[in-house]
Amino acid sequence: MSFLRFAGVGRTVPSKVKFLLPHFSSRCAISNSDLLSSPLKTLVLQSSNTGFKLSNVRYKSNITGDRSATGSNGKKVRLVAGAALVAGLVAGLSHFQRAEMKSTVAIHSETGKKDADDILEKCKRFMSEPVTDVQVLQKNKEEMRTKMEMMILQTQAEFCKALAEVDGGTFQVDRWDRKEGGGGISCVLQDSNIFEKAGVNVSVVFGHLPEEAAQQMRSRGKSLKSKDGKLPFCAMGVSSVIHPKNPHIPTIHFNYRYFEIEEADGSKLWWFGGGTDLTPTYLNKEDAVHFHKTLKEACDKHDRKLYPKFKKWCDNYFFIKHRGERRGVGGIFFDDLDSPTKEDVFDFVRSCAKAVVPCYIPIVKKHLNDSFTSEEKQWQQLRRGRYVEFNLVYDRGTKFGLATPESRIESILMSLPLTARWEYMHEPPKGTKEAEMLQVLRNPKDWAQ
Amino acid sequence: MSFLRFAGVGRTVPSKVKFLLPHFSSRCAISNSDLLSSPLKTLVLQSSNTGFKLSNVRYKSNITGDRSATGSNGKKVRLVAGAALVAGLVAGLSHFQRAEMKSTVAIHSETGKKDADDILEKCKRFMSEPVTDVQVLQKNKEEMRTKMEMMILQTQAEFCKALAEVDGGTFQVDRWDRKEGGGGISCVLQDSNIFEKAGVNVSVVFGHLPEEAAQQMRSRGKSLKSKDGKLPFCAMGVSSVIHPKNPHIPTIHFNYRYFEIEEADGSKLWWFGGGTDLTPTYLNKEDAVHFHKTLKEACDKHDRKLYPKFKKWCDNYFFIKHRGERRGVGGIFFDDLDSPTKEDVFDFVRSCAKAVVPCYIPIVKKHLNDSFTSEEKQWQQLRRGRYVEFNLVYDRGTKFGLATPESRIESILMSLPLTARWEYMHEPPKGTKEAEMLQVLRNPKDWAQ
Repeated sequence: MSFLRFAGVGRTVPSKVKFLLPHFSSRCAISNSDLLSSPLKTLVLQSSNTGFKLSNVRYKSNITGDRSATGSNGKKVRLVAGAALVAGLVAGLSHFQRAEMKSTVAIHSETGKKDADDILEKCKRFMSEPVTDVQVLQKNKEEMRTKMEMMILQTQAEFCKALAEVDGGTFQVDRWDRKEGGGGISCVLQDSNIFEKAGVNVSVVFGHLPEEAAQQMRSRGKSLKSKDGKLPFCAMGVSSVIHPKNPHIPTIHFNYRYFEIEEADGSKLWWFGGGTDLTPTYLNKEDAVHFHKTLKEACDKHDRKLYPKFKKWCDNYFFIKHRGERRGVGGIFFDDLDSPTKEDVFDFVRSCAKAVVPCYIPIVKKHLNDSFTSEEKQWQQLRRGRYVEFNLVYDRGTKFGLATPESRIESILMSLPLTARWEYMHEPPKGTKEAEMLQVLRNPKDWAQ
Repeated sequence: MSFLRFAGVGRTVPSKVKFLLPHFSSRCAISNSDLLSSPLKTLVLQSSNTGFKLSNVRYKSNITGDRSATGSNGKKVRLVAGAALVAGLVAGLSHFQRAEMKSTVAIHSETGKKDADDILEKCKRFMSEPVTDVQVLQKNKEEMRTKMEMMILQTQAEFCKALAEVDGGTFQVDRWDRKEGGGGISCVLQDSNIFEKAGVNVSVVFGHLPEEAAQQMRSRGKSLKSKDGKLPFCAMGVSSVIHPKNPHIPTIHFNYRYFEIEEADGSKLWWFGGGTDLTPTYLNKEDAVHFHKTLKEACDKHDRKLYPKFKKWCDNYFFIKHRGERRGVGGIFFDDLDSPTKEDVFDFVRSCAKAVVPCYIPIVKKHLNDSFTSEEKQWQQLRRGRYVEFNLVYDRGTKFGLATPESRIESILMSLPLTARWEYMHEPPKGTKEAEMLQVLRNPKDWAQ
């Protein structure tokens, strides 16, 4: 949630360098069957610019935001090289695509990396190449930035795969580039079979924190000492909002993020944040219990105090103040997590991220064929309106993203539903299913007892 | 716009004291034919509480926010009395309703006000009784607060009448009450024949300005000296947003407002604000020219410098920064207007308010029967999404209203459309009507040359 939109600060890769599956789609499209076939099919770059040098065209994802090197024709070259590299990373075995593989394979041979290591093996299953140069990731594989980037890409891939499997539709994959440093990968399934809008974003950005962002953090209790108003930072996260068509399938949102900040005296701060929450149109107690218990299990493995604390935090955060109601039945939410150790917190965050699929997919499958009336659909649309209200009025990340120049607006607002509705003075009659839902939104319950 | 939502700070009148047209509607409903028949039909109160005293149950709309008197059973009595009074004020001649009239007429006889004066005559045509006690208005008829309240109520009634005439539907009229002082009248026509959602609000509020509101004003260049953090104020305005169903009929918004503030040293400040702007789904140059020329004529009567200045202000204000586009084809917008004299500015504001019907209704009538495709409807829905973005993210009044406790949320968010849509990465192809519209939203034009 919040981080994604913060991380959505950047520019879209020009459409002409978007990755294409030849003859299938105007964008890089990984369909359900593509995702299920192992290994994945190769993504091939369609571009008039075929000449590139790999070695000098990448950003180095370091805390100062400096580029490690700059290509002779700058960003454009980088993008082309990146597009070519992804062809290698997610290489498949299609006969049709063997020819395009050669140069990439050759590069790896030359650099003595013929044998895929852990990083490379995992990258094959991602929706697109990592934002950071794979060689940089391989070199720094023990660093938290590398571990986190790999984890968020893996979470994105696993969730997209599970959603595509249920839906049968095709994810649109867009890479975007941030001027100051970094970029992201947005995967969207829109107006598909099961999902009205399903978005799963990854972003890895670095550079200098704008004043507004620094202020945002100070308001959360962190006092940061900048040097000449500059605050070098590195931030990354995975974020997702899934709006299904059927009003009996709830909306899910999750976001897991990691921050590094360098203060004026050279000291480095780091912290994690995140959460997963469910927004049903109609209350299904069994679903709410399943969702919360799955999250509780993920938390309890690390510390039994975590779930109750983060469950409460979630209820407080997703509160639509002007309506006096929560957005949904909650889940977990946390921020500024920096103890006991970086590794401990990362392990916890990874467990939470791993819980997303088992939290949500069984609920989707359960209600896949539920019939619904036009009145139920209309109530869903009204609840979608409240979702929009929360995201545009309260969500810190959205507000921050919108106020930041060079933000990638489409990734920030990907969380908005395809359709929404506002009726003047709507109040469901007592005793209805709609009133039952409102009751729970006004008085959150403990579901994992 | 902004004022309305500020003014929407209050509580809804409990539903059991809502005004009813017997046997027709569950709320106070003035239908098209009701509005057209002259004089208007009487609104009759249906309430179990039939005993009331008129003289001691009204708020006095003064700058300190004190009540002039309190009824023995408080607010509820006031509301009932208010409901009864409106029966007198908008008294019609229906035989059916003569009986209910008697007591009100008797009261007026007793107080020697049998002959309707200017105030009373005008009140007969309002959507509901004024927010301020009619006797107070009559007594202070030379004061700006009275003139402005009468003007905004008249604007509301004239616009509602014109809309109902075109639509054939029935306006829902809700009166609401603000705890600290004052209240409002919200008129809404929802999912009707021509209009998806048509809202016309009036509010008259007074008391002490909350810190956030004071800050809001300071940010607009006013430094206000409060006494012990308190800043007595009186604020009133009329505000409206009309969303038609047909994508060839544009959305209109207008708002005219008046503020009085008393500083710590007893000095009083006053100013006016307002504006009228048009948001088409598709560009119709003739409509844009008609709209702007009508506004220009209204402005030019007072000072030929006004229109160009306020047209530019409008283009700047209704800017959706994160999209790099305006909300519509603009109109006029101004704030903090306090010269040359109170009377001069009021005359100008009244001219602007008078221009709303001739600005808009001819455009509605012109496109009433335009056919449209589902694609055109879809583009309208996407533009509605942008309307929501502007209102929830940027509109100062909305933001202020939502952040203020005791706000009447339904009046504040009445401006949101019935339905809206967000598509990921939507960009109309070059050369289409949709692209033509975007072009104008990105590069505002002079329409009244």
